[in-house]
Amino acid sequence: MDKRVENIADMNQDFAQWYTDVVRKAELADYAETGGCIIYKPYGYAIWELIQKKLDKKLKETGHENVYMPLLIPEHLLQMEADHIEGFAPEVAWVTHGGSEKLQERFCVRPTSETLFCSHYSKSIESYRDLPKLYNQWCSVMRWEKTTRPFLRGREFLWQEGHTAHATAEESLAEALSILDVYCELSANVLAMPCIKGQKTEREKFAGALSTYTFENLMHDGKALQSGTTHDFGDKFARAFDIQYLDKDNKRQYVHQSSWGISTRLIGAVIMVHGDNNGLVLPPAVAPIQVVIIPVASHKLGVTEKAEELHGRISKMSRCKIDNTDKKPGWKFAEYEMKGVPIRLEIGPKDIEANQCVLARRDTGEKITVSLDNLEESIFETLIAIHGNMYNKAKNRLLASTHTAQDLPTLKTILDTTPGFVKAMWCGDDACEVEVKEKATATSRCIPFEQEKVADTCFVCGKPADKMVVWGRAY
Amino acid sequence: MDKRVENIADMNQDFAQWYTDVVRKAELADYAETGGCIIYKPYGYAIWELIQKKLDKKLKETGHENVYMPLLIPEHLLQMEADHIEGFAPEVAWVTHGGSEKLQERFCVRPTSETLFCSHYSKSIESYRDLPKLYNQWCSVMRWEKTTRPFLRGREFLWQEGHTAHATAEESLAEALSILDVYCELSANVLAMPCIKGQKTEREKFAGALSTYTFENLMHDGKALQSGTTHDFGDKFARAFDIQYLDKDNKRQYVHQSSWGISTRLIGAVIMVHGDNNGLVLPPAVAPIQVVIIPVASHKLGVTEKAEELHGRISKMSRCKIDNTDKKPGWKFAEYEMKGVPIRLEIGPKDIEANQCVLARRDTGEKITVSLDNLEESIFETLIAIHGNMYNKAKNRLLASTHTAQDLPTLKTILDTTPGFVKAMWCGDDACEVEVKEKATATSRCIPFEQEKVADTCFVCGKPADKMVVWGRAY
Repeated sequence: MDKRVENIADMNQDFAQWYTDVVRKAELADYAETGGCIIYKPYGYAIWELIQKKLDKKLKETGHENVYMPLLIPEHLLQMEADHIEGFAPEVAWVTHGGSEKLQERFCVRPTSETLFCSHYSKSIESYRDLPKLYNQWCSVMRWEKTTRPFLRGREFLWQEGHTAHATAEESLAEALSILDVYCELSANVLAMPCIKGQKTEREKFAGALSTYTFENLMHDGKALQSGTTHDFGDKFARAFDIQYLDKDNKRQYVHQSSWGISTRLIGAVIMVHGDNNGLVLPPAVAPIQVVIIPVASHKLGVTEKAEELHGRISKMSRCKIDNTDKKPGWKFAEYEMKGVPIRLEIGPKDIEANQCVLARRDTGEKITVSLDNLEESIFETLIAIHGNMYNKAKNRLLASTHTAQDLPTLKTILDTTPGFVKAMWCGDDACEVEVKEKATATSRCIPFEQEKVADTCFVCGKPADKMVVWGRAY
Repeated sequence: MDKRVENIADMNQDFAQWYTDVVRKAELADYAETGGCIIYKPYGYAIWELIQKKLDKKLKETGHENVYMPLLIPEHLLQMEADHIEGFAPEVAWVTHGGSEKLQERFCVRPTSETLFCSHYSKSIESYRDLPKLYNQWCSVMRWEKTTRPFLRGREFLWQEGHTAHATAEESLAEALSILDVYCELSANVLAMPCIKGQKTEREKFAGALSTYTFENLMHDGKALQSGTTHDFGDKFARAFDIQYLDKDNKRQYVHQSSWGISTRLIGAVIMVHGDNNGLVLPPAVAPIQVVIIPVASHKLGVTEKAEELHGRISKMSRCKIDNTDKKPGWKFAEYEMKGVPIRLEIGPKDIEANQCVLARRDTGEKITVSLDNLEESIFETLIAIHGNMYNKAKNRLLASTHTAQDLPTLKTILDTTPGFVKAMWCGDDACEVEVKEKATATSRCIPFEQEKVADTCFVCGKPADKMVVWGRAY
């Protein structure tokens, strides 16, 4: 560990403490006076804005429209779908008073907005011409969690929630699956994180869904993170909320719906997939600063001017910052390493003389000398190389940390000694899933779309099994 | 009124009904199941996104950073500044339960976030090196209003709230004034709305502020709208929250603060400043659709293809939509007029033959024939001309609706017969301001920065007066 970076735990000795240290030292977030909530500081929020921008563009390109529904849900509305209320009631915050008056009906702060969208759809959808409705909303939601951790689990978090209505069951399922692809592309191409995608078991699916799909990332400590989910509701909510349309033959039909979301949890994933003992390592696509320029011996004639000139050039093709403060270069190096800035350029009198500068990569620690003549090209190529290297490194770790188990004791041993994903066959019986939870404190992460027959029988009960499930311990 | 546009009130006969009709028929918003709240529909939300984009860019260019603070404020925090709690307590929504448990301390849903920012600043500001802090937040806030109207007053609305901390009193004042300029530029250059800017009286200022500044727009019915405000807090909140920094001489000093915000209320302003009896009229800069192409006699050979070709061309330089549905052209014309689309292009077989199309302007109703050869240029010039014309029209109306009064009965008569702004001298006594409210149901809108001496004495009490105040009836 770089000695200049003080007070950050060693990730191999205390991963939880390391995580908290990075969140604080990289100035991503701070604890708020409101218990269980965090303050998204400028650097952390800027990462979220970049994620938003990428996903929002993709959603608009695929015909989705942004809307905004109320923050508060009347209690009667939340109760209309039985499974949904059962799932969310224990963890919602209730508004009971407006000013000094007690309200006639309570409102909950939205934990998710299915019920509001359904209420709107029941009033606004009349004919097949009104379908599909492809709505999305960027907002914050609230769930009254007992234990919280910045970005991973909190009483309030930022997310997007898509809510769509379609004419047929095929279409709502297709939407849930195609958005899962959009998410996995975001994970791989923007956040440099490989993922496993598949379907959730009945036990793990969303409250009120017909089926839930997930993409799961593997953290540095071998734990899984459910990074985002999509749900096919079929006509379950449509029946509860009476959302019907007139089809081409003038017959009334129920709509079929989907919903899906990703959240600021992805920032937690980025920290835990890519970070190291010097702090954060950011994928270039979501780095608020992609290139930092540090003048060395800046009191010498011409250094500051040259650094400013480079800043002007590089700002045209990347998010570039120059650090002209009077701190020592070594301290600055440590600071931007902590903040995960992909590229650092160092420029001093000797470099200027030789028409070159030093380019340091955050992901590998590698330092090379590059000519100032084609600096833009070097930076462009390096940013692409960094993304590729980060993705491959994470992918190799995911592959190396994915094991196979033929029985429950083996799965437990693997998770106790070399944590990661474990592939094992499952008969489909809920009792077996419960047993895994009880005996190995592991959960089914998903039934991957890419199936492999790793055995013939269920690794818990020994009965014939044809579903390969990925198991793990999760955040 | 265009006969094809059904069920919209005449704005000269029933302005309030006309407003509601436009909100609904232009598909900007809908009433929500949550009482007093609205659903921001795709078209209305898209206008807000365009306003956000323009302002966010400007704020970032001027060194401001986005953050996100919690939605809920612990009661003890809201109570720390006496004037602030007095102003907001009657209209906040209270969260009292988390899940099934009663909370030990109540939380209010933020009506504004001064207290959270102050709490954060008190912990994170240590030295003069940490200043200024120029934070901004995009979010929704909640105020438990009794009477509501879409965009203008609601229990929940979307806004940005800037909260800054500075070393000196001069700096916090300068920030409040410079952001007011940013807002007025937005009003004029983006929304084509002229405004009057000035300072609020003691009676009308923000709860907890030293001074409040405002920009006021004049609606079509002669009523004023407070479209946005900025506040200088001096060190009032800093003393209440103990926000101190070490200055260069190592002495502890209180910071000086400002806050400022604009909201979705601006959409209401756009409707009421520019709208007409055919519906909405949108300034090009915030029109989700700037150009709509309507093929005429589209069953004829080549029409659809030509329209598609134009769509491809025009999409490169503007937000362009083609309407290929099987509705009759006349219906489409009325629909996009209702939605305030600045330019409509009509193209039929004869136009194609003559290498031209019809360009119709929403703001003037004017229809001209333009060559397809330099269509981009025609559209570009027309969009600019539309903005200029809309601004001038609004400016002329504002000037024509601004009167002068030497006494209270005259002011009342003016507001009863030819509503608008009324300039009148004020002695500075609160009692006179109260009398204006009671006898003329008018309020002071602001003490304009551009002063004129329209008399020597207070128009209410007759004592010497040196402040010219603009009065009006407001939303």
